[in-house]
Amino acid sequence: MKNCKWYIEQTSEDEVVLHSLKEIIYTEKSPYQRIEIIHSGNLGRCLLLDGKMQSSEVDEFIYHEALVHPVMLLSESINKVLIAGGGEGATLREVLKYPVSEVVMVELDETVIKVAKQYLPEWNSGAFDDPRVKIVIDDARSYIEKTKKYFDVIIIDLPEPAEGGPAYLLYTKEFYERVKEALTDKGMMVTQSASASVNNLRVFVSVVSTLKQVFPYVKPYITYVPSFFAPWGFVLVSKKNDPDEYVNKIKDKLYYVGESLKFYDMDAHISMFSLPKHIKKAFEKGGRVIRDDSPLSFY
Amino acid sequence: MKNCKWYIEQTSEDEVVLHSLKEIIYTEKSPYQRIEIIHSGNLGRCLLLDGKMQSSEVDEFIYHEALVHPVMLLSESINKVLIAGGGEGATLREVLKYPVSEVVMVELDETVIKVAKQYLPEWNSGAFDDPRVKIVIDDARSYIEKTKKYFDVIIIDLPEPAEGGPAYLLYTKEFYERVKEALTDKGMMVTQSASASVNNLRVFVSVVSTLKQVFPYVKPYITYVPSFFAPWGFVLVSKKNDPDEYVNKIKDKLYYVGESLKFYDMDAHISMFSLPKHIKKAFEKGGRVIRDDSPLSFY
Amino acid sequence: MKNCKWYIEQTSEDEVVLHSLKEIIYTEKSPYQRIEIIHSGNLGRCLLLDGKMQSSEVDEFIYHEALVHPVMLLSESINKVLIAGGGEGATLREVLKYPVSEVVMVELDETVIKVAKQYLPEWNSGAFDDPRVKIVIDDARSYIEKTKKYFDVIIIDLPEPAEGGPAYLLYTKEFYERVKEALTDKGMMVTQSASASVNNLRVFVSVVSTLKQVFPYVKPYITYVPSFFAPWGFVLVSKKNDPDEYVNKIKDKLYYVGESLKFYDMDAHISMFSLPKHIKKAFEKGGRVIRDDSPLSFY
Amino acid sequence: MKNCKWYIEQTSEDEVVLHSLKEIIYTEKSPYQRIEIIHSGNLGRCLLLDGKMQSSEVDEFIYHEALVHPVMLLSESINKVLIAGGGEGATLREVLKYPVSEVVMVELDETVIKVAKQYLPEWNSGAFDDPRVKIVIDDARSYIEKTKKYFDVIIIDLPEPAEGGPAYLLYTKEFYERVKEALTDKGMMVTQSASASVNNLRVFVSVVSTLKQVFPYVKPYITYVPSFFAPWGFVLVSKKNDPDEYVNKIKDKLYYVGESLKFYDMDAHISMFSLPKHIKKAFEKGGRVIRDDSPLSFY
Repeated sequence: MKNCKWYIEQTSEDEVVLHSLKEIIYTEKSPYQRIEIIHSGNLGRCLLLDGKMQSSEVDEFIYHEALVHPVMLLSESINKVLIAGGGEGATLREVLKYPVSEVVMVELDETVIKVAKQYLPEWNSGAFDDPRVKIVIDDARSYIEKTKKYFDVIIIDLPEPAEGGPAYLLYTKEFYERVKEALTDKGMMVTQSASASVNNLRVFVSVVSTLKQVFPYVKPYITYVPSFFAPWGFVLVSKKNDPDEYVNKIKDKLYYVGESLKFYDMDAHISMFSLPKHIKKAFEKGGRVIRDDSPLSFY
Repeated sequence: MKNCKWYIEQTSEDEVVLHSLKEIIYTEKSPYQRIEIIHSGNLGRCLLLDGKMQSSEVDEFIYHEALVHPVMLLSESINKVLIAGGGEGATLREVLKYPVSEVVMVELDETVIKVAKQYLPEWNSGAFDDPRVKIVIDDARSYIEKTKKYFDVIIIDLPEPAEGGPAYLLYTKEFYERVKEALTDKGMMVTQSASASVNNLRVFVSVVSTLKQVFPYVKPYITYVPSFFAPWGFVLVSKKNDPDEYVNKIKDKLYYVGESLKFYDMDAHISMFSLPKHIKKAFEKGGRVIRDDSPLSFY
Repeated sequence: MKNCKWYIEQTSEDEVVLHSLKEIIYTEKSPYQRIEIIHSGNLGRCLLLDGKMQSSEVDEFIYHEALVHPVMLLSESINKVLIAGGGEGATLREVLKYPVSEVVMVELDETVIKVAKQYLPEWNSGAFDDPRVKIVIDDARSYIEKTKKYFDVIIIDLPEPAEGGPAYLLYTKEFYERVKEALTDKGMMVTQSASASVNNLRVFVSVVSTLKQVFPYVKPYITYVPSFFAPWGFVLVSKKNDPDEYVNKIKDKLYYVGESLKFYDMDAHISMFSLPKHIKKAFEKGGRVIRDDSPLSFY
Repeated sequence: MKNCKWYIEQTSEDEVVLHSLKEIIYTEKSPYQRIEIIHSGNLGRCLLLDGKMQSSEVDEFIYHEALVHPVMLLSESINKVLIAGGGEGATLREVLKYPVSEVVMVELDETVIKVAKQYLPEWNSGAFDDPRVKIVIDDARSYIEKTKKYFDVIIIDLPEPAEGGPAYLLYTKEFYERVKEALTDKGMMVTQSASASVNNLRVFVSVVSTLKQVFPYVKPYITYVPSFFAPWGFVLVSKKNDPDEYVNKIKDKLYYVGESLKFYDMDAHISMFSLPKHIKKAFEKGGRVIRDDSPLSFY
């Protein structure tokens, strides 16, 4: 081992990953979590929350473009957008590439935004200062339950649904029902939804099964995110329009934002939504519906 | 850490991966390498060569189906097939699903085949006993240089092209020129070609650039292989036919073999060959041509 | 890393140790704990309980000779001996080198003895078959509370006093008071008592402080045990005789058993009982008295 | 694992140690080596050279007092002292507690001294500014070969004798012969000499065997150094006086320096020089004599 300093993450009971650690740029304990910015040899600058990798300089464009662009391009209307989580500001950065009139971003931990502004400027590129943006410091579940606004697009950019974790109530049937109410008639939602690795599909499948109880159109998709050390699952859902019928319109819309993108294009879209056989089978078989009173427990 | 026994692999200078280790099933030092069969908590039974993960029970179907089926389905003729490497027998198993008349498999290390027969029966499922199969114990480079046979399909299933490693002369321009000669007029070749991770594309790009010097049609593709902890690159090349013109014929041919497949189907094919923007850009930019006298050096 | 298989033990919140793992010889879950026998590259055969190193082929002689011989040589009478724990049989093996008339060994987990007989024969060398030995399968605390026997020497060979662990009630003031009653008039007891490392003295100091509440003579001593990755603490206590006055008699007694010993001799005795300044200071300062209702909590 | 940042040291082919890493205080590549100051959870501030632990805040007093005081207290004259290595300044700090007239310290890497002054002030406590001190930036071997000075005490405080390492020529018979010439008639030398762990005694034994070829009195001794994760060997040699005959004079001399010591006292001295049976046996058996043209190779 040429390197002697390492960042170690136990990604499951049976798997541990080490990244060489070049620099500890920042470390702080907010009221909610330990926030750390490190520089790693293979991933560059990284944001860690409670020791868990959130996003890295080298590949954050993959995760954030994969999360944001399908829903923004497939949705008929994108006037009002809600982002739950996304404290780094990169989801916001991608959304603001479109002619939206308002983006509400609900983040629980104000310190994450402060740290991101100072240490992750490429992640947000001034997005927090855009006049279309409203930052709300609140629990996303609580905000969505109270709000009287309606959104064309809702983007869920939160940690995984670990029971007892800060986000486990943002992956339940009850939450999704409330999301549905907060969407406009033809509104769409997208959520990240954990690993899509062949030996770790349980959470992804359960999120899809849960969403199918609430939305008529549920489209899971996948891309590989190196800093998560796994192919990653996302789910796009629609209240009324069938997203498949809007795929042929992507090309035209891409004309306006495509230049600035590094990962997403028509091929990437097709690749992400074309699921291999074993994953389609897993969805057919289905998983447990996640409810407020029976959340997922996992590592 | 609930587990106390681990298999540790340093996958790059800046990255180390631990898999929980449940059982050491077999360990032997052949004249060429240390061969080990372990049982890991997340990957099941695994084959290690010199401490490096080769394939695992949980996901070998992904790697082997991704390697074999595109070339077998896109090639006009599949009468005679050559496999370089592939000691586990799983590449052979997939090839034998087609009505081929002869498969020559050239493996350097006889012990790997012996161990695979005994400890990895699901990998080969009796493939070594099929009367269409000829096993040759030899260096694949040396075999291809000497053989007077012609093959419709050549499949390169060898370790990565590390300089000084056993396989580095099987990724050079000189080798590919000889492969071209050993192919029939409309022959095709496919090779695995290392990581396709955004921060580790150098080898994949160089293999593609090298193949472009030799073949008129070069089609890189990608899928995620959990036991390699990375999206994995493959390259399919053709001497005469444009593979893209044969994609629409896959569906019919799949009718005959599709039932037995777990990963590969039309969607998986499309997903693998639809490359995201940053990878296409990397190929446009190109890499260094690999030659016998200037091999790739890497971790 | 030339080795790819490792045994990993987290020895404290801030410290983890890896030993290369050559072979998993045995693994079983008894009603009390996971019992494992492994072969490690630097320590040879090792016994692990719930993933924690108990003793190793390479250095078990150090631990067991250090535990047994001081008390056996300093005690005026050694007729009846009680061993609490010590399932491997090595403490028993050392005790049986003396002309004792009866040794009662109280071990909670019968399976440990069974496994030790089969896989650690050098540890017990037939000791379990000696006619002077009585094995009792019971909790040591419970046995000592019930027994009507009196012992000249009591040897506590149990895991560390972690709260909630199987042995935490065998390091309390209440337990030591009962031990005192079970000793003959001039009886002595010895107990292993955790790390004596400069940055991890808390448990050792507390055990000494607790014993001082019960016994007039309390003699802590130290030796280094490689498989525990730390200098290790022991405490010898006496009900009536001052052990220091018996040191000069060791030489003669050693004449009879010394030949068979590999670690312990007069020099080793002196070395172990001559404590460096910072450890004496720590004992002067003292620690918290451990009671049944306020046990030590620690990693 | 509550901690996610770790310092990892491979201490042998079969052993790896992790210390939690709280802060990277300093890192620089000098012409000779990578110099790093980190803060670890269990050892406090640590100095690393090329990734190897040199000394830590928590236990440097043990190593440095064990190295310096025996030779200073057993030597008849301590007027002129030479320190080879010891860049942190802690060996110097201990030597300066005595009424010496001159201390020459020969350190290869000026940067280590600079870094120690700034980041390890407790290690040197102003020692570098003492008017009795002469710092020479040179290879210690080269200095001792050239010097025309004579020293009463020579202290070798250098890295282990790894072949190819910076210090391997400072543990050979040829070097020790030159040291002997540089000593005054009744001069004494002490050297650190690697692990004294039961499964890793080879280097220590070879150093002792080599010294026995050159000096009439060779006294190995041992103490445990937590940051080296092993009991550590030292060897004190004398040109004319038998050190054993001077032990009884230590007490009086200690009267003057003892107050400031944290580890060393009469008991510590006795403990260190009283070797257990298996180590005495290893010395009787002896090891290979280390010569310039046949240095020790090891991990």
